[in-house]
Amino acid sequence: MTLTTEQYLSAVKNADIRIVSRLISLAENRQPAVRRVLSLLFKQGGRARIIGVTGSPGAGKSTLVDTLAEQYQAQGKRVAILAVDPSSPFSGGALLGDRIRMNRTIGGGKIYIRSMASRGSLGGLSDATADAICILDASGFDIIFVETVGVGQAEVDIAKAAHTTIVVLVPGMGDSVQALKAGILEIADLFVINKADHEGSDRLHKDLRVLISLTDFKEHDWKPPILKTVATKAQGAKEVVDSVSQHLEWLVTSEQGKQRQLSLYSERILSLIFRAVREEIMLKKEKEIQQLAQKCLKRESDPYSAALSLLEARD
Amino acid sequence: MTLTTEQYLSAVKNADIRIVSRLISLAENRQPAVRRVLSLLFKQGGRARIIGVTGSPGAGKSTLVDTLAEQYQAQGKRVAILAVDPSSPFSGGALLGDRIRMNRTIGGGKIYIRSMASRGSLGGLSDATADAICILDASGFDIIFVETVGVGQAEVDIAKAAHTTIVVLVPGMGDSVQALKAGILEIADLFVINKADHEGSDRLHKDLRVLISLTDFKEHDWKPPILKTVATKAQGAKEVVDSVSQHLEWLVTSEQGKQRQLSLYSERILSLIFRAVREEIMLKKEKEIQQLAQKCLKRESDPYSAALSLLEARD
Repeated sequence: MTLTTEQYLSAVKNADIRIVSRLISLAENRQPAVRRVLSLLFKQGGRARIIGVTGSPGAGKSTLVDTLAEQYQAQGKRVAILAVDPSSPFSGGALLGDRIRMNRTIGGGKIYIRSMASRGSLGGLSDATADAICILDASGFDIIFVETVGVGQAEVDIAKAAHTTIVVLVPGMGDSVQALKAGILEIADLFVINKADHEGSDRLHKDLRVLISLTDFKEHDWKPPILKTVATKAQGAKEVVDSVSQHLEWLVTSEQGKQRQLSLYSERILSLIFRAVREEIMLKKEKEIQQLAQKCLKRESDPYSAALSLLEARD
Repeated sequence: MTLTTEQYLSAVKNADIRIVSRLISLAENRQPAVRRVLSLLFKQGGRARIIGVTGSPGAGKSTLVDTLAEQYQAQGKRVAILAVDPSSPFSGGALLGDRIRMNRTIGGGKIYIRSMASRGSLGGLSDATADAICILDASGFDIIFVETVGVGQAEVDIAKAAHTTIVVLVPGMGDSVQALKAGILEIADLFVINKADHEGSDRLHKDLRVLISLTDFKEHDWKPPILKTVATKAQGAKEVVDSVSQHLEWLVTSEQGKQRQLSLYSERILSLIFRAVREEIMLKKEKEIQQLAQKCLKRESDPYSAALSLLEARD
């Protein structure tokens, strides 16, 4: 925190990208002083539209995001991309793999791209992503993509922070059944069948239609549309952008949409509370937990009683 | 809780499988009265060996687990399998897919198999799995497999509860790079290349060797071996069982192994504390969180200040 709070606020407001990036790093590293800046930045924001993009590895999410980002840019929007990799919980980043892609230049270099990797603590990544969204939003970005790798619990948590979540599937990867298994129907606002020129695309479309028809949608619920794209050729991108707009319309006009927005903030508040509680316990109780773990190993105590005793000692 | 605590304890001790199953369900549904039973059961246990098996979908984990389970059974061991599906966070289970497999009969029907699905709350599944392990351990099972689908954060959390974690890979699925991305090197005690008769198996073996050689192992650290299997033909299963035994030897004799066992219990205690805190907050503060979320939506407040005010009000 080399700048004052006021300097940070004004730099972010003036879209000073270097300072924006530095603030995101500070938030990732949980610099306590950043909290106040985030608090004030939040109130400056609220205009950005957050679009989550998730799906199996190899589904072509990055290419699709690039294509969509350029569509928005052509509309005169300022676009940012957060590429989140929750599958790397320990090492702070991928050793190899598609992190290389971060070097891509799209939109003539005017689209902000940042990769975010987990740093070991559960929930740390979705917190850091939410912080980054807050900063980018305050900095005047109109569209923020949050692109995640994979379809696990972490991705679902991150998807919950988006206004609109796009689930990307590809034909012929057993994705129809995987889609069901991942519980992604519950998070998908839009299904995109990418690589729609590949064999099996109609079959996947049919499977998804059946799946959606089995779901019990209420009258004003949003029913996820199924779109087809060939992201490498930018085919279908415009339709996706239109569909995202319709979903926004639903979010701001329907009661269900408002509830969805509210629960986004409830979840965020809860998550911040848990983070604080976790840090407090780790700090104050570390030694006691170690001792209790010793006792558990000798079967002199058990984790259930140990947790209870620590909770009672807290008050 | 139709039985008394004593009745549960004695039924579990006598390996009454019907009661064991019922207790696991009660624990999954977080029946508060179960906590005391679990507390007492924990002290009865400590003999079971927990083997985590994780890897990409389609890697043949189930077949491998079945084969290994039968090997252990042939040695006279009592074996249980917990098949965990963390990728279904909302719906309480897969709609379709390989849950059907639960009908499999292996080991002459004498191997206990149970499927566990997530019920919506973060951390709920790893808690429920740990509870199930505690119950099965107290009931005299010698070997408990915890088989997870996928390679995300949830799988990693679950893997941390095992004494030995086997990461299953298959040739030709881009798994070598995926392996890196998933941070699974940090959780793998054993690498198994399944379907080793398929093309690309040597290549994968080489990639893994390179990966391991890049890792900075200390003198008494466990260095994960790489084994090859063809699970459908039970090829290589014996070698895996031997390797698991060597890892157990390391766990109980080396200082690093003891630390690993200790951290297993520290994590468990922490996780139970967080669950309790979460439930307390959800119960007592639900309305306040809703109201604060409303304010956030209008940008009259922000999640950071809201969380802080709730934390301060707690004391």
